[in-house]
Amino acid sequence: MTRDMDAALKTKVEDICEVVLRKATPSKDEREKTMRFSTRLIEKLKHELLKEGIKADVQLEGSVAKDTWLAEEKDIDIFILLPREYGREGFTRVLEVAKRVSDGKFLEAYAEHPYLEAYINEFTVNFVPCFKVKDASEAKSSVDRTPFHTLYIKKRLNRKLKDEIRLLKAFMHGIGVYGAEIKVGGFSGYLCELITLYYGSFLDVLRASSKWHRGEVIDIEGYYRKAEDAKKIFQNEPLIVIDPVDKGRNVASAVRVNRLSEFIMASRLFLKKPNIKFFYPEEIKTYPPRDLSRVIASRGSDIIFIKTEAIRAVPDILWGQLFKSQRALTNLIKQFNFEIIRSEVWSDEKSVNIFLFELNSRFLPNIEKHVGPPIEKAVDCERFLEKHLGSEDTLSGPKIEDNRLIVYRRRRYTDVVDLLREKLKDGGRKLGVASLVSQAFTNSLEILVNEEIKELYSINREFASFLTEYLRGRPSWLF
Amino acid sequence: MTRDMDAALKTKVEDICEVVLRKATPSKDEREKTMRFSTRLIEKLKHELLKEGIKADVQLEGSVAKDTWLAEEKDIDIFILLPREYGREGFTRVLEVAKRVSDGKFLEAYAEHPYLEAYINEFTVNFVPCFKVKDASEAKSSVDRTPFHTLYIKKRLNRKLKDEIRLLKAFMHGIGVYGAEIKVGGFSGYLCELITLYYGSFLDVLRASSKWHRGEVIDIEGYYRKAEDAKKIFQNEPLIVIDPVDKGRNVASAVRVNRLSEFIMASRLFLKKPNIKFFYPEEIKTYPPRDLSRVIASRGSDIIFIKTEAIRAVPDILWGQLFKSQRALTNLIKQFNFEIIRSEVWSDEKSVNIFLFELNSRFLPNIEKHVGPPIEKAVDCERFLEKHLGSEDTLSGPKIEDNRLIVYRRRRYTDVVDLLREKLKDGGRKLGVASLVSQAFTNSLEILVNEEIKELYSINREFASFLTEYLRGRPSWLF
Repeated sequence: MTRDMDAALKTKVEDICEVVLRKATPSKDEREKTMRFSTRLIEKLKHELLKEGIKADVQLEGSVAKDTWLAEEKDIDIFILLPREYGREGFTRVLEVAKRVSDGKFLEAYAEHPYLEAYINEFTVNFVPCFKVKDASEAKSSVDRTPFHTLYIKKRLNRKLKDEIRLLKAFMHGIGVYGAEIKVGGFSGYLCELITLYYGSFLDVLRASSKWHRGEVIDIEGYYRKAEDAKKIFQNEPLIVIDPVDKGRNVASAVRVNRLSEFIMASRLFLKKPNIKFFYPEEIKTYPPRDLSRVIASRGSDIIFIKTEAIRAVPDILWGQLFKSQRALTNLIKQFNFEIIRSEVWSDEKSVNIFLFELNSRFLPNIEKHVGPPIEKAVDCERFLEKHLGSEDTLSGPKIEDNRLIVYRRRRYTDVVDLLREKLKDGGRKLGVASLVSQAFTNSLEILVNEEIKELYSINREFASFLTEYLRGRPSWLF
Repeated sequence: MTRDMDAALKTKVEDICEVVLRKATPSKDEREKTMRFSTRLIEKLKHELLKEGIKADVQLEGSVAKDTWLAEEKDIDIFILLPREYGREGFTRVLEVAKRVSDGKFLEAYAEHPYLEAYINEFTVNFVPCFKVKDASEAKSSVDRTPFHTLYIKKRLNRKLKDEIRLLKAFMHGIGVYGAEIKVGGFSGYLCELITLYYGSFLDVLRASSKWHRGEVIDIEGYYRKAEDAKKIFQNEPLIVIDPVDKGRNVASAVRVNRLSEFIMASRLFLKKPNIKFFYPEEIKTYPPRDLSRVIASRGSDIIFIKTEAIRAVPDILWGQLFKSQRALTNLIKQFNFEIIRSEVWSDEKSVNIFLFELNSRFLPNIEKHVGPPIEKAVDCERFLEKHLGSEDTLSGPKIEDNRLIVYRRRRYTDVVDLLREKLKDGGRKLGVASLVSQAFTNSLEILVNEEIKELYSINREFASFLTEYLRGRPSWLF
């Protein structure tokens, strides 16, 4: 790159960052409202806890506490720190109190840890009970560590760094890798903050990540003598960011390979050709329903939609169950030799869940090769011949191929729809379908092929976006 | 097994063997005719060679020399042993002389070694020139070793052993594993003789082979201290029978795993349930041509027939070329992701050759997943995106899967028939199709699918048998 080009690019990147910052930084008004609301809520909660005789610290945590949240994109995290002696029943008592200050609009959540998600005055508030520990390494669960994280970050922030963090969060948000929740499997706010601290600026993070390799180690406090030592402990984790407050934790453990790779690729592309669309992707223009059949047909494949009713669970539980079930269904389909081109899972988290499997074909031939024992195993061979020689299901054979008996037999399922209907009619629990999904299957199960999905597509905008994106198959930042 | 059953079985086996021996042993008349003919032919050839001033020994070799041939199943092998100094031109001179005694009915054959196949008075005679060596280990080619084989066997035979050898040969012939020629890849006559000598009787051979493992070592003369030593030398050979006249040769090197496995399996089954059908299988009843479509359709697969004209070559060359080409075609079809259920090759060695490929489907969907470089390889990724982003052939993507870029693109060949027609129109030489087959393809190439083969099936009995056997897919000895 010539110096001139470099300069031109720089200006452009700076222009873009300026625009982004203007949008991503909360206005004075938003900031004041948020802080005022948080402070009052905390006071109210403290008061109520006192009335109950519970000796707890109440603290504001998360991005609001650190002033690193993206405008209009915040949860207010209120942590209730209990002395250990309260035990886990303490959590229940505390959450009961929290309910009282939430005016009845809340969702009880028990993912890894019990907490309360409340909706108060247009704010989403998470009430999180945890244990008060002296040191992060004494933490019983990850939430016990949060106050230390907040402290660590707050000590090191300045206005410039907050801007850089907001740029990184907005970038990650725009390319769809922001958030450690199971649905996303991406970068948590804390992780964004740490890597910004480490590399110094948003652009330096992108420059560095452009060159990341699988198993990259970021050890801010230099706890490990060399990267290899850390790698040995966090084996097979795609990105390793040692927690400054606990050397035994990888802050990036929730980051899935896909999200990491997307971030790396997007970083490179943005640096090469900066564009505001990385931060604020254009809204997807869905195919008109009347075009759907044509678009699907042009692929020549068969797209199978397994549709089931709403599952009542907090998102992390729901998505955990959906992904687990997707794996089970994938195994089932593969086990019966249908070839999967691609698979996705979608949920509006309210009324409908969809597993999507795109196959080479929903059909397979009647004849199927079945490989038997090696010739050396005399008893197995005898049994194989007894079973298949002259059996009704034997279409051809048995014969010998290399050193094995084989038979060409009638395939049990020549249509994947029959396979799925039969195997899922009892919910498919024993195939590995997760409990809540399995239950949902027994209550409502629809298997739709190709354009049969048109009805849902026509009435559900969110699904239409999902399917359009699926069919385009391209992240918004690839343009 | 109770003693009674054992006795009953024994009688039955003995009955069967008696019947087989009666059929397989040449009659006095056949024997006399054969010997008289051979002797006279040798005398005549010796005379002619003398006239030419060639100092050669002429010897009867093979099963006729050893009196181990199966009735009505013989080649007369006449070896012409030349002193080394004649060089390979000596072979040509000698074969010219052999032509003179063959009355113009012969085929010149140059497989591994030049020889002449002549048809004289209803006899098939092989004239084989070779070098006279002092010791088999000095042999320049396998034919130089033959006289030593004959000598070795003749010294050890008696009437009982000849019977046992004939039984084994008849059994192997019946189950289709007899013959070391490339088409069969089975057991040579010499190999049958050796293992009979080694185990002592036909039934003892079957009993032993029932328990053979891959890489079984038979070292009659005990040249190797232990089996492992021999295995190291003849690595990966499925059956190792050390040549008694040359410890560096495996007599069973031509035996393919398939044939070996078939022999093992058939041995077991015969011992368990003796039946004359192992020796003399029933003739195959071909499907009536009008049933062919239905039988093929019932499989739900697509059977592709690649048909080409006659290839003029001796069988070993022809089949070598056919098998090589079959492997090349298999690779081609797999490379384009069509799924092969089974493949065979057939030839009448006169007018037509057929490659058969049974596929899950002749069609594949338009869309095809194409896996690109890992995200770490920045330059490769850039190139991949340049190529596929917005390309006309991109149906969906690019996107990231795990740590790789992938794209769903338009498949080049969605019909295997198009693929084959295009790739074979120039003969497919560079795909690995063997030279003579490639040439045949450029002259005549027909690709037929399923019932389109009906015409050939109706007019060619031999092919009808082959295809019926293929569709049944079961060796004759599995009943």
